Amino acid sequence: MIRSTSHHPLPQPLVDELAARFSSRFSTAEAVRAHHGHDESHFPDALPDAVVWPHSTEEVVAVVQACRRHRVPIIPFGVGSSLEGHILAIHGGVSLDFSEMNQVLAVHGEDMDAVVQPGVTRKALNAELHGSGLFFPIDPGADASLGGMAATRASGTNAVRYGTMRENVLGLEVVLADGRVIRTGTRARKSSSGYDLTRLMIGSEGTLGIITELTVRLHPLPEAISGAVCAFPDVDSAVRTVIQTIQLGVPVARIELLDALTVTAINRYSKTSLREAPMLFFEFHGSPASVEEQAQTVQEVARELGGQDFEWASRPEERTRLWQARHDTYFACLNLRPGCRGITTDVCVPISRLADCIAGTRADIEASGLVAPIVGHVGDGNFHTLILVDPEDEAEIERAECLSRRIVERALAMDGTCTGEHGIGFGKLDFLVAEHGDGAIEAMRALKHALDPDNLLNPGKAVPGA
Amino acid sequence: MIRSTSHHPLPQPLVDELAARFSSRFSTAEAVRAHHGHDESHFPDALPDAVVWPHSTEEVVAVVQACRRHRVPIIPFGVGSSLEGHILAIHGGVSLDFSEMNQVLAVHGEDMDAVVQPGVTRKALNAELHGSGLFFPIDPGADASLGGMAATRASGTNAVRYGTMRENVLGLEVVLADGRVIRTGTRARKSSSGYDLTRLMIGSEGTLGIITELTVRLHPLPEAISGAVCAFPDVDSAVRTVIQTIQLGVPVARIELLDALTVTAINRYSKTSLREAPMLFFEFHGSPASVEEQAQTVQEVARELGGQDFEWASRPEERTRLWQARHDTYFACLNLRPGCRGITTDVCVPISRLADCIAGTRADIEASGLVAPIVGHVGDGNFHTLILVDPEDEAEIERAECLSRRIVERALAMDGTCTGEHGIGFGKLDFLVAEHGDGAIEAMRALKHALDPDNLLNPGKAVPGA
Repeated sequence: MIRSTSHHPLPQPLVDELAARFSSRFSTAEAVRAHHGHDESHFPDALPDAVVWPHSTEEVVAVVQACRRHRVPIIPFGVGSSLEGHILAIHGGVSLDFSEMNQVLAVHGEDMDAVVQPGVTRKALNAELHGSGLFFPIDPGADASLGGMAATRASGTNAVRYGTMRENVLGLEVVLADGRVIRTGTRARKSSSGYDLTRLMIGSEGTLGIITELTVRLHPLPEAISGAVCAFPDVDSAVRTVIQTIQLGVPVARIELLDALTVTAINRYSKTSLREAPMLFFEFHGSPASVEEQAQTVQEVARELGGQDFEWASRPEERTRLWQARHDTYFACLNLRPGCRGITTDVCVPISRLADCIAGTRADIEASGLVAPIVGHVGDGNFHTLILVDPEDEAEIERAECLSRRIVERALAMDGTCTGEHGIGFGKLDFLVAEHGDGAIEAMRALKHALDPDNLLNPGKAVPGA
Repeated sequence: MIRSTSHHPLPQPLVDELAARFSSRFSTAEAVRAHHGHDESHFPDALPDAVVWPHSTEEVVAVVQACRRHRVPIIPFGVGSSLEGHILAIHGGVSLDFSEMNQVLAVHGEDMDAVVQPGVTRKALNAELHGSGLFFPIDPGADASLGGMAATRASGTNAVRYGTMRENVLGLEVVLADGRVIRTGTRARKSSSGYDLTRLMIGSEGTLGIITELTVRLHPLPEAISGAVCAFPDVDSAVRTVIQTIQLGVPVARIELLDALTVTAINRYSKTSLREAPMLFFEFHGSPASVEEQAQTVQEVARELGGQDFEWASRPEERTRLWQARHDTYFACLNLRPGCRGITTDVCVPISRLADCIAGTRADIEASGLVAPIVGHVGDGNFHTLILVDPEDEAEIERAECLSRRIVERALAMDGTCTGEHGIGFGKLDFLVAEHGDGAIEAMRALKHALDPDNLLNPGKAVPGA
C-alpha cells in the first residue's frame, strides 16, 4: 500500500501571491485541506498544502504559472468521488477546486450539445436540461463533476447504449503545464483533423492538462422508458441472457448484474424485497412500440435461460426506486459491515469470458474468507467487487489487495483491462504496466514528458515513474 | 500548391539490405514506384524510392530499423484511395505496402469483434463475416484497407448510426519509430486504463506509428433493412428533415444529401432516373417493426417539410442499386467533365449551421464559375464538394483552391472542422493551424517529436513543421 510521501511546504512567495490574488478563495486551513485530501478510495488521506477555487480559465492559468515558477504540483479537484486516489496530494501541492466553475455556458438544442464548465455535475446539467427534450446520459452513480468524469474516462450504467465519456465529449478547453490554453475539437460531430487531443486528455487524470471547459453531446430523451428486474438461478444464466440480448441487437439502455449478496445488501439498506438471487436490472429506451418489443425479446431470452420473476417497472416512481437502489449499492454493501471501507475492483473483459471471469472471482473471494459483493455493467463486460475491509486491520487489507491482484490478473489473462471506468490513479499503477507492457508505458511516459516536462500536473498518477 | 520536394536517393547499403531480406517483395521499379506515389487527390505524384511488401510485424520492424539507421522516411500504403496526399512520398523514402498483410486473424462472434491485419479491406472483412450474423459497418465508399481507414479516422455513410473508426477500433498493434512493438487497448469494450494510445494513433496518418494489427468492433446484421429516397424543393428543407429526424431520436442508419447537380451526374453515370432535385437517401436498420416505425416517422417529417416522391427500396437489389449509385457519386461527378480531376472539400459543421453552410458554399461555387456538385453525410453535418478542375490549367486550379479555402473558412467560423473524414495529409496543413490554433499545434508537434524524434514516419503529413 502506497503511503503519502513527504514533501516540502509551499514556498512563502507562492502563498503570498495566491492569497493576494484569490483572497477568500485561497485556503491553507487544515479542515479545507483535509476535505481535499480524501476521496472514496481506501487509501490514506494525502492533504494538499493549499486549495484554490478558480472562477475562470484565466485564474487557472494564473495558478499554473505561479506553481510552475515554484515547481509546486497542481491537483485538479471535482467532487472527490474518485475511487483510485486521483485527487490525493501524494506529493503535496495546490488543489484546484472547480466547484465554483459550475456554469452551463450554452445549450445548443438543435445540435444536441452543451458547453459547460468543469465543475458542473451530471445531475446539475440534467436539471438545466429539464424541459429541453434532451439529456446527458453518462451516469457513474456518484453525482460527479463533468471535468472529473472526463479526466477519468468515466462511464456507468448506460454506457452499453450511449457510450462513455470518450464518446460523449466533442471538445475541451485545456490549460497545459506551461500555462498555454488550447482548444481540442470543435462542435462538429466528427473530424479527421489532426491528432486526437480530446481523447488524449480524456482519461489522462489531470496529468497532461487541466480541463477548464467541455463541449458534451446530448441525447434526445426517449419517448418511452421501461424497466424490469429478473432473478436467475445462477450468475452464468444471467450472463448468457446478456450475451444473447446484445447479439440480437436489442438496443438495451441498461443491463446490470447484481449477485445474491448485493441483493441482500440492497434489501437491507433500501428496504426492498427483491428475491435474494443473482439478478439483472434492465432499462429500455425508445418509442413505446420499440420499448415494448425490446422488453418482449429480452423476456423471452431470459425465460429460456431460467430467468424467474420477471418484474416490470414502467411507472417512473418504481423505476426511480429500483435505480436508486442500484445506485446506492456502494453504500448498501459498505453497510454489510459497519465501519469498514471498500477496496473496489473494476475489471472489464470480453463478454464471452464474463461468466468464467465472475465464477473464478467468486471462487477467489470464497477462498480469501473476505466479504465482497459483485455488481456489474455486464453489457460491457465490466463488473465490480467491493471488498470490505477493516481500515485498522493491516493484515486484512493485505489479503484484500492480494485478492484484488488475483482478480485483475485473471481479467488480463482473458484479454481484459484492469479498469473499465474508475481509472488508474495511483492505486492501479502496477496493473497498468502488466496490462500494457513496457513499450506502451514508455510511450505514455514520453507523452507525459512532452506535455509536462517538470511533472507538475497531478504527479504520481496515471503513468508510473513519469 | 505544394510540389514534391527534392530528396536524395536511397543509400546503397539500405537497398542491399532490403533487397537481400525481401527479394521479390522489394522493388525500385519505376512502374511500381509510380503506383505507390499516386492517390485519388489532385496533387502531383510523388514517388517513393522503393516499395516493400511485408508479411509480418517482424518484417515491418526490420524495415523500420533499417530505414532508421539510414534516416530514410517510411510511408505506410493501403490501397491508395487517399484524397489528401497521405501516401505521397514528398520527402522520398520507402513505401510499406500492406496488401500482403491481409489476413483476418480471428473473428470472436460472441464478443462481436475481429482481429485483422492492416491490409484487409472493409469489403474483404465483410465477405469473411458472411453467414456469421455480424458485419463491419464503416463504409467510406472506396474499398479501403482497415489500416488506412484507422490511420485517417475514416467514416462515411453510416457513421450517423455506427460511429467512425474512432468508435469502432478496440485496440491496435503498432510499430513505433524506434522499432518497438506496442499493443494499445485490449478486447474489453471499454477501459480507463492509461492514456488513450489507440485514439492517439487513429487519425495520426502514419506519423506516430505504423499499424500492424487492428481489433475492430462488429455489429449484429440488422434483422430488417429498408431504404428510401425523397426529393425536396430545396436543400434547406432537406436539411430541416435531417435535423428533425435526429432530434426525434430516430436511429437512422444512413441519411445522405445529394444536390441537384449530383443527381444529374448519377442519372447519367448509373442510368438511373431520379428527379433532378435536392434529394435525401435514407437507410433504416432494426427489427421489421422498428424499421417500419422509423420509416413512417421520417416520411411524415419529410412530407411536412415539402419532401416529394418518397420512394421505397425494400428489396435488397433495389437498395444495392441505389447505394451503389451513391457510392459511385465520386466517379459520376468526375464524369461530368471528362479528363478533369477533383479537388474535394470535406467540412463538417454543427447541424444547426448546415443549411446556411451549404447555401453559402453554393453561392461561392456560383461566383467562382466552377463546376462543383455537393453530397453530404448530413446526419453528422458533414458534406463534400467535388470541385472539377482541368489538371493542366494552373489558373483554374488556383481558383478551385481559393474556393476550397473559402468553404473551409466558413465552416471554421461556424465552429466546424476542415475535415470530417478525409484527413489532413499535406493538403490541409494550413487549415489545421487555422482550426486548432498555435497552442494545440504546438502540443501536436511535441507529441510527434516525443514518438518520432527523427521525423521518419510519413514526414510532412498530419502536423505542420514537425
